[in-house]
Order: sequence, then structure tokens, then C-alpha cells
Amino acid sequence: MSNTTIIKQRISALRGQLEKEGLAAAVINTGDPHLSEYIADHWKFREWLSGFTGSAGSLVVGLDWAGLWTDSRYHLQAAQQLEGTGITLYKEGLTETPSIADVLCEKLARNSKVATDAQLFTVNSFAKLTERLKLKDISLYHNSNIYSVWTNRPALPDHPIFVHDVKYAGETAASKIAKIRSYAKSKGANVCLISGLDEIAWILNLRGSDISYNPVFYAYLTIHTNNGRAFLYANNEETGRNLVADAKLIDHLAECNVDLKDYSTFIDDINASKQKWCYDVEHTNAFIDMLLCTSRVESATPTMLLKSVKNKVQINGLRQAQLVDGVALTQAFCWLDQQIEKGAKVTELSFAEHLDQCRAQQKDYFSLSFNTISGFAHHGAIVHYGVTPESDIPLEKGNFLLVDSGGNYLNGTTDITRTVCIGGYATEQQRRDYTLVLKGHISLATTPFPEATSGAQLDTLARQFLWKDAKNYGHGTGHGIGHFLCVHEGPHRISTRNNNVPLQPGMLISNEPGLYIEGQYGIRLENMVCAKECCANDFGKFFELDTMSYFPFDANAIDVDLLTDEELAWLNNYHQTTYQHLAGTGLLSTEELDWLSNKTKQIIRH
Amino acid sequence: MSNTTIIKQRISALRGQLEKEGLAAAVINTGDPHLSEYIADHWKFREWLSGFTGSAGSLVVGLDWAGLWTDSRYHLQAAQQLEGTGITLYKEGLTETPSIADVLCEKLARNSKVATDAQLFTVNSFAKLTERLKLKDISLYHNSNIYSVWTNRPALPDHPIFVHDVKYAGETAASKIAKIRSYAKSKGANVCLISGLDEIAWILNLRGSDISYNPVFYAYLTIHTNNGRAFLYANNEETGRNLVADAKLIDHLAECNVDLKDYSTFIDDINASKQKWCYDVEHTNAFIDMLLCTSRVESATPTMLLKSVKNKVQINGLRQAQLVDGVALTQAFCWLDQQIEKGAKVTELSFAEHLDQCRAQQKDYFSLSFNTISGFAHHGAIVHYGVTPESDIPLEKGNFLLVDSGGNYLNGTTDITRTVCIGGYATEQQRRDYTLVLKGHISLATTPFPEATSGAQLDTLARQFLWKDAKNYGHGTGHGIGHFLCVHEGPHRISTRNNNVPLQPGMLISNEPGLYIEGQYGIRLENMVCAKECCANDFGKFFELDTMSYFPFDANAIDVDLLTDEELAWLNNYHQTTYQHLAGTGLLSTEELDWLSNKTKQIIRH
Repeated sequence: MSNTTIIKQRISALRGQLEKEGLAAAVINTGDPHLSEYIADHWKFREWLSGFTGSAGSLVVGLDWAGLWTDSRYHLQAAQQLEGTGITLYKEGLTETPSIADVLCEKLARNSKVATDAQLFTVNSFAKLTERLKLKDISLYHNSNIYSVWTNRPALPDHPIFVHDVKYAGETAASKIAKIRSYAKSKGANVCLISGLDEIAWILNLRGSDISYNPVFYAYLTIHTNNGRAFLYANNEETGRNLVADAKLIDHLAECNVDLKDYSTFIDDINASKQKWCYDVEHTNAFIDMLLCTSRVESATPTMLLKSVKNKVQINGLRQAQLVDGVALTQAFCWLDQQIEKGAKVTELSFAEHLDQCRAQQKDYFSLSFNTISGFAHHGAIVHYGVTPESDIPLEKGNFLLVDSGGNYLNGTTDITRTVCIGGYATEQQRRDYTLVLKGHISLATTPFPEATSGAQLDTLARQFLWKDAKNYGHGTGHGIGHFLCVHEGPHRISTRNNNVPLQPGMLISNEPGLYIEGQYGIRLENMVCAKECCANDFGKFFELDTMSYFPFDANAIDVDLLTDEELAWLNNYHQTTYQHLAGTGLLSTEELDWLSNKTKQIIRH
Repeated sequence: MSNTTIIKQRISALRGQLEKEGLAAAVINTGDPHLSEYIADHWKFREWLSGFTGSAGSLVVGLDWAGLWTDSRYHLQAAQQLEGTGITLYKEGLTETPSIADVLCEKLARNSKVATDAQLFTVNSFAKLTERLKLKDISLYHNSNIYSVWTNRPALPDHPIFVHDVKYAGETAASKIAKIRSYAKSKGANVCLISGLDEIAWILNLRGSDISYNPVFYAYLTIHTNNGRAFLYANNEETGRNLVADAKLIDHLAECNVDLKDYSTFIDDINASKQKWCYDVEHTNAFIDMLLCTSRVESATPTMLLKSVKNKVQINGLRQAQLVDGVALTQAFCWLDQQIEKGAKVTELSFAEHLDQCRAQQKDYFSLSFNTISGFAHHGAIVHYGVTPESDIPLEKGNFLLVDSGGNYLNGTTDITRTVCIGGYATEQQRRDYTLVLKGHISLATTPFPEATSGAQLDTLARQFLWKDAKNYGHGTGHGIGHFLCVHEGPHRISTRNNNVPLQPGMLISNEPGLYIEGQYGIRLENMVCAKECCANDFGKFFELDTMSYFPFDANAIDVDLLTDEELAWLNNYHQTTYQHLAGTGLLSTEELDWLSNKTKQIIRH
């Protein structure tokens, strides 16, 4: 049976279910009940129903029509994958594209009922869609029966959960629980609910591997304020995750006075609750909010902010992780240069695989922190390019290779992007573009800023040189990064979008300006930086961003004449430090040391 | 009778009134019912009651206590003026200072009643205070009887209102009314209420002089959407403003189908109304909102945004105003140099008066756009320094004079700040500070930015060089400016505070970074700029800020080594253009031309 026939059958089965219940349509979002960025297969219903494998999108199925909404990253891929399925592609981000609400209001009769899994919505997005549908008296319902058509649905993940030693975490779970309990108590709550998976992992000093790239596990956590108790809903005997048998885990939980419960009992428990609740409405799903909103006394928790400010143990651990990460990059890029020099064929994919192997051999390595992006020439201009055997192309002299990669190590998570010119030659335009991006990177890395400055203010430092050339990039300049956790975390960011979270000492964030010339090449230069206090005077406190990553920029791609003396001095100093730190690990071969020494030699103005 | 005795009697009279009505306290804000920045004497009740003459502050009078809250600009002045009155000064901006709500909750018994004029509150600030007082079951009431103790209250202003010719305004009142009517209609409103005085003046192409520096007049405007009618509540026979007799005005109003009504009948009219209302809740007072909120269907109007985008006629007119404004500055600063050279005594005040005279003689001059700031040495470090005969000091060689001034001309409003070193000599530190401020000014003046960029993003361009020296300034970098209207107008601004209004072509704004070294000197370098489209390409549209003001910066205060080649080129080009434009007016004497030629000669790197 062809793929399109299978998809048609699945859609048809869902339509049968809708008809049986008198429903006019179903909205199937991408996500899980914890609003995770990456999700387990158990939650990939949209993918199963539509055949579209992208990481973002909403499928809407009516009785005689169906549509899929996805953003510009996936317009091409979705068009290919939906072909012949009868599902219309709605390209988000184009002004002419109607919204889901627009299409539902157009296609459905007044007083129609629409089913969805409210667990896959934020509180705000569910409220917005509900409100818009009201314009035509259409009601949006939470309805879990829609999953009944999903044959062979993958089970919830059952990977082990393990203790993240306090020697890495720098703070005990008991201490973090106490802070959250104290906050919730001060707001008059009896229970604080945490449903973000990275928040739970961080609070409890536990890690798992239920989701690719993110060392988290499926669970809910409730912290009671009156009796010193807390409950972790993570057990799952059905799927084989019998944590009760794990003595080390049980001991750890006992130490911080946390009881283990079954994941499946969570909804029943909160449904029966007569408590006053505290939870973060921006990071709790709409279904939970429906059950608890009338007894909600506080709609924020301090977890995200506490988690974002790293302690000294975490920062020192991350420095170690950055060293081995730089070693892995050195090994891979040295190998690449050797292959190119001797005329061997290297492709985007084979380089990415080689780099991943170099990383995997490092001390305290756990996993990649995301799928390595390896984009040559025009592929580099696709911001979220994921190389596949079908898209793979060989690396050839005279164009840019953009490599964005990172690892989860026990002592920290890394994320670094370098762009190199294959064969050592770049055109004048390529060098100008590379250098303008680099100037932005350096400006952000070197400019102190007053206390209370937000990322929206700092973002301009990284863009100003591109703006002078009437150029720009469409993504943020920096995202928060977890500690042996998710490579993207809030609440802070460096972005053009309004964000009034001030950067605080201890916050980790990426510094990654870029430039993407469609059909030609992409440039992105990313280091991880950590905010720290730099001085205090009559004008107040000043902070600065301390660069944590070590790997050289490509001198062959730099137009030195575009750099100021200060910028050149920063670059040479960064290269010198990089050599010292990476050579100091003792992990590089003589060959690799020579290569690194050459790549970090003083750049001189002619 | 001493001043303090008078104040005590006035406070006592108010207490008598409160007791009579069973009230525990009164809150007296600074402001008028139109939420104006500057106000007429008729509304200066707080000043009359307390003796404190600052432009901002709230007086709270209880039965046996009284307090005045004001911000850091006025801490010193308020302490002096309140001495002996029994009124406690609460210094806003210090963390230890309790809020008005804190003090009311502390001092008053549960279920107390507090009187205030809700007309002097924004909707939001009234709601906030009400909510906080509820914590102790204290109620906040609108009560206009508090004014009954005000003997000899100045009448409402009765200055004439005159037509601002469309040859200056560039758009007829009828056209603007039509736009607002159409907006209100699209929101389902029957009436659109405008209560901002500059909004009314702008819409109707009328000006007045009811308030110092702002060419506006007291009025309300209602625009009906169903019958093509509109009402201007501006007449006031009691106070002698009998506009009905003004044939030119009446003709103008008839042309745009606006009927004249008495200002005093406005509240009764809206109270009786059964309409659906549209008004801007951020720019309408809390009392009006109490009357209309249940019939409000839209809480914004397009007026502020429409007004902020200047048309070609306005921009061309402003260019003319900038020329004569630059001529006035040239005359005044040339005179200053001559006086200093021959050893004559010039003070802050005598220079300001001379400059004001030079401005007053220019073509199409109407008034100053604000009180000229002339601050020498340490006075320059007081951001809102207003020189008085008591504070006046002579200008002496070797320090900075900061002069911030502007005029209202029939063809535009100006605002410009220059800082000059008296006697031509500045220390190395002074030159470094001046040059860092100048670099920020140039960065903002020369960096294009993508469409949809807000002032919060651009603000960083102006501060980055100071930040590198761990310095900063405590005010915004730019404020919107009216056209022959208020020198401060929204909705756009360039500021560290969150502001997501994107800058659009045609928006006028100031470019005024500064630096204030307490006890030593202040530096501020301000030109007016106008956003305009600069180019469009694959990355979208780019805008830039076109500098409109013409007057040289002080070459003696510049450390050329701190400027890049591009910055120096901009500066020299700006000076050359300035000379050409100002000389081209034919308004300068040979002496003044020589002076200007010298001040604008090419600055060369040694």
C-alpha cells in the first residue's frame, strides 16, 4: 500500500470517529502535555496522521477537508510529504495565508463542535483559538477519543532515570525544593505544580533520556507547602518503568522527601484536589489549567529564573565541558582539512558523522545536545538545515561550510557554530559578510552593559554592522542554555522580540549572529557566553558576557581591514587563549596541535 | 503672614472640608483633565496647597498629617519649599520610600474614605491605587468639593484660538476627522472622544496658547460616526472666551462640519449619552472612563500614531524652521564667544535670555518650545536644570556649558542641545566624555535599521561607547516631537524602557545621548532626526534617521583619536552642510559667518 493511501485511510478513520461523536473537525497540534520543544514518539500523532515529519505544525481534519499549517522552515518539505494525501498545505508566515481559526470559521457551520487535545496547547493559545471560534459560535473541546484511531501508538518512553550528582549540579534537590516551596507558600498556595520536564529534572537533580537530545524524563512534580511533602509522577509500571525497584533513585528521592507516584494517576489526583494551586501559566498546558484555574492563586513559579542562573559549580563544570568540546571540534576540523588537502571526498553528512564521533569519545559525554547542522554552500543559508542522505552534497573548495553542533556532558551542555571556507579560499564578498557577522559577535562579547539591561537591547550590538550594509538575519542572537539539560531554555534571550528579562550574572546564553544569502551560503558564528559582574561605580553596576567556548574563527574568511584595532586584538587574544586551553588538555595529537597552532596564529594587519 | 503660615491655613481649610464630608484624606495629583505634561494655573491646586512649585508630585492630606511625593529632580527643591509647613517629603525613587498606598494603608482606619479628583489620574493609575487601598478596605472617591477651599482659583485660560493654515499642516482637518471617524466606525463606535489637547489641535488644524510652551487650548472633541457631525467643547463665555464671535474660526469649523459647544457642558453631555464610545484609555482621564467605560467598545484611537507621522509639507516646513533656529543659535553662540573673549561677564541666565531673544526675532517664530536649559559646569549635570536668578552662575573658561533649547515656529517645533567648552579649552577627560557621547549620537544618526525596529532596540546604538567606559545616562535617547505642537509626543520613543512601537518614515524624534558627572559637568548632544526609507532588498525594507538640525558641534571638545574615519567623515560633512545651509539663509552678519566658518572648518586627524 502506498504512503498516500495509508495517510488517506488514517484521516478517514479519524473522520469516522468525528462523525460518531457529532464533531465537525479535529485540531491536532504538535507537542506533548509538558509543552516540550522536542517530543517522544508517543506524542507524534500529527506526524502519524499526516505523514509530515517536520518538528512543527498543526493538522486540522474536517469531515470532507483537511489542512496542515507549518512555518517557512518546512514549506518545501511539507509540500512534498503531503502530496497526494488530500491535505492542503497552509504556509504560515505569508500574509495571504488564513489562520486555522479563519479556515474553521469559513468551512464549518454555526454551532459546530471541534475536538482537540487541550494538553498540546498553552493556556494562552487555547484561549485565543476558543475566542476566535466563538465569532461563529463554534466550540472547541478537549477530547482524547481522537487518539482511539491511532493503531500501534508507541508507548510512553520507559528509559531509566538517574541521579545527576550534586558535584555537577552544585545545589541539592532539597535546597531547590525549599526555595520553590517558600515562594509558593508566600503566594498563599498549598501546592506548586511543575510540569516542564527540564524544570523537574533540574529541581530534583535527576536526568533521563525519554526525548532525543534532551536528558529529561516524562513526569509531573507537585510540591506541597504545608506538610513538607512532594510527589514525583514518573513511575509507569505498564510500560516497564518500574522505578520503585531502583534503590539509588528511591534513596535520592527519600533524601529530599519526594514520594514516587504513577504518571498515569496525575490527572485523577489533581482533578480530586481541593487545594490552592501555584503554577506557571505560560508553561502549563491548557487542559491542566481547565482543571485547576478556579483554584489557582498564583500563575508563576520561580523555577525558570532560578534554573537560568548557574552556580559556580555548574560554571566550572561547563568550562571543563567546553574544553573537551573544543578538542572534539579541533579533531574533526583538522581531519576535514587533511581530507580536502588530499582530495578525498567529504560530504555534509560524513563530516557531521565524523564530528559526532569525535564528540562521543570525550570525557563525561552523554549525548548530542541537538542534531548537528552541517550545511555547505546554499544549504548553509537554510537556517535549520538538517542533512539527510537525500540532501547530502560533497564539500568543495571555494564556499562556506556552516557547522552548528553541541553536546550534553555530565558537567554541562554545549552549543557552538563555526563557518569555514573549504580549501582556505573565500571571495571578497564572502569575507566581507563573514567579517560583518564577526564584528557583531565581538561587539556582543566585549561591550559591558548596565544592570537591568534586557536581551532586546543587547541584540542591536550584534546586528549594527550588518544593518550598515542593509543586511540582517531572521533569527534571535542568543538563547539561554541549560546545564546538562535542554540547549534552549528561558526566560532570557537576546532577540529583536520584546523581552524584558534583564540578563543576570550566571545566566548562560548563546552569542550567534549570522547572515544567510539564499542560494549561495550561510554564515553563523556562535560561542556560549555567561553573564558576570564587571564593575560598579557612580553609574551603577555593569555586567559583561564572558566567552566560554574555545575554537578558532576562520582567518581565511576574515577581511582584516574591516576590523578595528580593538576587534583584532580581541580576536588574537581569543585565539591565543583557545590554543592555550585546548593544548593544555593534553588530548590533542601533535598533528592536531600543529593544525590548531596554525589556525590560532596572530592575525596581522598588512 | 509668612508663607508657611499660609500653607498651614490652606491645608487646615482642606481638613475642615474633609471632616465635613466624613473623609479621612485627600490625594491631590499634579495634572489637568487632559493629562497634559504642562498645565494651566487653573489646575495648579497641588502647588497652591503645598507651596511646592515643581512640575511633578502628589500631595496627600490626612486629618492630622500630610505628605508630598516627588521624584529625584525635585528632592532638594521640595525639601526647601516644604520646610516648616508640616508636610512630610517622600522621596520617590529611593527603595526605602513607601508609596502613597503604603502610607494611606498605614495611617488610615479600615473602611476609611479618601477623596481625589479622578480627572487628574490615568485610568490605569486610578485602578492601581484603588486596588491597593482595597487591601485595607479603604475607598477612593472622585470628589470635586475639595476645590471649594481654593480661594482666588485662577480661571480657565481664555486665550484666542487660531487657525493653523493647511499650507503648514499639509492636510485638512476634514481629512483627519474622516480618518478617525472611519476607524471608530470600523470598531462599532458611534462616537470617538479625543481629550488630549495636542491631539485636538492637530486634528482641527487649530492652535492656542492656554499652556506655556505648548500651542494648545483647553477643549474636548467628539466625532460622531453616524451623522457626520463633530463637537468641539472649547467655548467659555464665563471666562471671556466667546469663540462664537470669531468669524474666521467659525468658518474654519463649519468647513469641517464641527459644531462649537461650551467646555463646561462636556461632562453633562457624555453623562447623558447612550452611545457606543471609542477613546484611548491611555490618554483619557479616569473620571471620564468611569462615566463611559460600560459603553466603551474600543479603547484606542489612531490619532497619536497618525499625528506622529509627518507629511511632506510638515517636513519641508520643519526644514525651514531648522534653518532659522540654527541662525538664532549661531547668533547667540557667536555673541557668547565675543563676550568671553573680551572678558565680559555672561551668566547662565543672561546667555539663555540672549538666545531666547535671538530665537524670538526669527521668521514664523511663535514661542519657545520649552524653558531654555542653560547649565554651566556642575549645573549641567542636573538633567532638568532650570536656571533662576538665585541659582545663576557666571560662565568661566575651562568647563562645559550645556544649552538645551527650542522654538515653536508656525512651520515646526525645534529642540536642540549643544555642549560647548567655555574659552575653547577642555580637559582630556572632558574631551573623552564628549567624544563618547558624540560617537553614540553619530551611530544613531548613521545606522540604517530594518522595518519594524523599535526605539528600545535603537537606544543601544547611542549608549554602547559609554558602556565600554562603564558610563551611562539616566534619560531616554529620543522623544517624539510635534509639528508646531508639544515638544514631547508619543507613541514612539528611543529608550531603554520597553517600547514596541516601530519607527516609521515621517516620524520625528530627538537624538540626544548625554553624560552627567555629578558636581562637575553635563554633556548632551541633541539633533532632531526624521525617520525615512533608505533602501529595500532581499532582507526587507531599511529605514534611517535623517538629521534635521543644523548647528556645529564643539571641535575643541572632541578627541579626534577616538573617532573612526567614518565618524570623522560624517562630522565634517555635517559641519560643511551646516555652513552651507545657514550661510544660505542670508540672515547672518559677516562676523557671524566668519565665526560659523571657523566652527565648521574641516577637522583633521594629526
